[in-house]
Amino acid sequence: MTQIEYARAGIVTPQMRIVADKEGIPVEELAVRLARGTIVILRNGMRNSEPVAVGEGLAVKVSASVGTSVEQADPEEEVKKAEVAVRAGADTVMDLSITAMDRTRRRILQAVPRPVGTLPMYQALTEAREKAGSTVKMGVEDLFGVIAQQVADGVDFLALHCATNRDTLESAKRTGRTDCSVSYGGSHLVGWMVHNQMENPLYEHFDRLLTICHTHDVTLSLADGWRPGCLADSLDAAQVREMIVLGELVQRAREQGIQVMVKGPGHVPLTEINNTITLQKRLCAGAPYFVFGPLVTDITPGYDHVNAAIGGAVSALAGADFLCYVTAVEHLRLPNRREVQEGVIAARIAAHAADLTRKPGAWQWDWDMSRARKSLDWEKQLVLAIDQERARSMRQTRSANSGDTCAMCGRFCAMKVVAQYLGKEADVC
Amino acid sequence: MTQIEYARAGIVTPQMRIVADKEGIPVEELAVRLARGTIVILRNGMRNSEPVAVGEGLAVKVSASVGTSVEQADPEEEVKKAEVAVRAGADTVMDLSITAMDRTRRRILQAVPRPVGTLPMYQALTEAREKAGSTVKMGVEDLFGVIAQQVADGVDFLALHCATNRDTLESAKRTGRTDCSVSYGGSHLVGWMVHNQMENPLYEHFDRLLTICHTHDVTLSLADGWRPGCLADSLDAAQVREMIVLGELVQRAREQGIQVMVKGPGHVPLTEINNTITLQKRLCAGAPYFVFGPLVTDITPGYDHVNAAIGGAVSALAGADFLCYVTAVEHLRLPNRREVQEGVIAARIAAHAADLTRKPGAWQWDWDMSRARKSLDWEKQLVLAIDQERARSMRQTRSANSGDTCAMCGRFCAMKVVAQYLGKEADVC
Repeated sequence: MTQIEYARAGIVTPQMRIVADKEGIPVEELAVRLARGTIVILRNGMRNSEPVAVGEGLAVKVSASVGTSVEQADPEEEVKKAEVAVRAGADTVMDLSITAMDRTRRRILQAVPRPVGTLPMYQALTEAREKAGSTVKMGVEDLFGVIAQQVADGVDFLALHCATNRDTLESAKRTGRTDCSVSYGGSHLVGWMVHNQMENPLYEHFDRLLTICHTHDVTLSLADGWRPGCLADSLDAAQVREMIVLGELVQRAREQGIQVMVKGPGHVPLTEINNTITLQKRLCAGAPYFVFGPLVTDITPGYDHVNAAIGGAVSALAGADFLCYVTAVEHLRLPNRREVQEGVIAARIAAHAADLTRKPGAWQWDWDMSRARKSLDWEKQLVLAIDQERARSMRQTRSANSGDTCAMCGRFCAMKVVAQYLGKEADVC
Repeated sequence: MTQIEYARAGIVTPQMRIVADKEGIPVEELAVRLARGTIVILRNGMRNSEPVAVGEGLAVKVSASVGTSVEQADPEEEVKKAEVAVRAGADTVMDLSITAMDRTRRRILQAVPRPVGTLPMYQALTEAREKAGSTVKMGVEDLFGVIAQQVADGVDFLALHCATNRDTLESAKRTGRTDCSVSYGGSHLVGWMVHNQMENPLYEHFDRLLTICHTHDVTLSLADGWRPGCLADSLDAAQVREMIVLGELVQRAREQGIQVMVKGPGHVPLTEINNTITLQKRLCAGAPYFVFGPLVTDITPGYDHVNAAIGGAVSALAGADFLCYVTAVEHLRLPNRREVQEGVIAARIAAHAADLTRKPGAWQWDWDMSRARKSLDWEKQLVLAIDQERARSMRQTRSANSGDTCAMCGRFCAMKVVAQYLGKEADVC
């Protein structure tokens, strides 16, 4: 049985208790939302890893993507990046490898104690190219074989472009787009559909996919192949039409007892973020929303982590539940360890800023920092910093002749004068 | 006569023409808003520098702060930072020096072709400490002397805590705060008021200040001494009470033909940004709003530029007109050149994201980038990047064995298959 089936049967599982404790909510409330599908618990039934819940009323989660490429084919370097991401506070890691795929995935599953997601089509496409000379030669059986293998390996959630069907393709053809399709998996899938004049196998055989996911309670992350890749394509016909199909598939997955979340853009102007989230929540019946960024302008290569932090915070405020990090080097190359670290922290800042508006308990951290600042307790400020190591190293590079106290006031300290005048008690000025 | 007086008299000045051209709006519209006070043109009448306009319906502007400290007392290094800020696209520079003040200010005024602002109280406080042993010994005549000197030197806008009066101080005492006062100038001013049992001289002698500003059409940037320094103090009684006083002073400044803008927080939870901006715009009769960040959480030392980009974008979307950058090292130490550069770019990303929702013309940049991406024109993508040098250096650190084309597809390129299927013409897919 899957977590959603247990919840419907009124059975509280150890995983439900763990996540309810961590989120600080009654397990009964969690179970209600789990049964309804507005919360998912990411955890392959075979893995002995820390379960992470995503969705309605929970802390906003952050995912970091790593993976080998043609240029960087060493699995161990990607394992290191995954470890950096976890240490920086990523709630989940996605392995998007396109070389040495089995080995990298298995090593990451060993090294990461939190949920791991994959995009199985990458492996199926790569194998088709290696075996048959082109990604358009990917066989349907091969694709489902890869999915089954990854589920058996222990992957906790699968990103799959199930809703990018012929109907959405024809819609994109009729209305036109600025950037056709920027989703890597999505583009290749559409290329496959066009070349072979066939329907998307993940759409056509969706029930088969559900059966595979059911074996180990793997969560489906329904990816959007028509994810807008530039502001100009945001909320266009192809995206909205695919969102409607995504909603239909959410319903079918839930009926079969499969946990499901929906992946989102991409690139969205600030004024359209609220509309995008509201529409997704409505059309997909409150399924947890996993957004990629989003970026709020197209012109920031080198600083896309800052850009995505803006989009992530505004999205989470509007109801998005899960932020896929975007690193500084997105659109330029794959990230190194330092850029992975900074990408995770930037996304966590966005998540925490929104948590303050979703979860009263999230305020404690900020209160503690304010008090440490008021009392000029530098050590405590550094310990409380979201990236303690970075904050400490920056603080240490102050000039040697500076002290910890203010050098400005001279004989009378203005701060003390103010504090004494205003102060009624130690903790309130 | 000042720009606001010319506008009221129906006279179009060369400065109005320059900024109207740059903003792409009819000069008559600009003059109407200038006369009403919802736009200011930053430019000391003595300086032969590029005027910059801030306010209603204009592109959101970005300011970078530099300045000597006890640890870094070399004026030339601060001049270099100011130059870095201008090259990175800062619209204005503020010199907040506390040592070698006259020399640093004059060198920055020479080196920066855009508006320069100062916080004259820093100089008056420092001189009091040097001459009389304490900042609380600052003489009222000395303070006004410093202000007059800085105006005569050519400073374009002055940040002054005119509204931090005894009434707001008593309010803060009654209601209490988590962090008393984190504004550096504001705290010292309050310390001075408490120690000397006197009213704020900038409030008491506000008309005298207006007379000085009038001589060279210097814009007043009314700073908020009770700027919340942590989320917990946002929109508290002291802040709101000071905002009311700020509104009264805006009216008095306008009556005397003085251009005026209002400075704002600080630290604001995401859900309170819209309220803060709306309240300021209402209480201060639409005066341009110059916000410091704001930060949307307290816990990000080392990453405050990312945090401030979130707050800045949401603020500008809500109507803020001018973003004071916050660097990564805020709360830790003063920034180096690289951190100045990154701080300016982060604030510009926030400003541009909001411009897209304020100015239709702002979209051209993003459209150009999307088209460069679609056509895989790497050189154009790098030229269009908000920080071309950074993007170029990141792109160059790709592995040597990677080409510019996709290594994934093999014999059939899926992207080409998709583009051919969807494409009706070259530019639209």
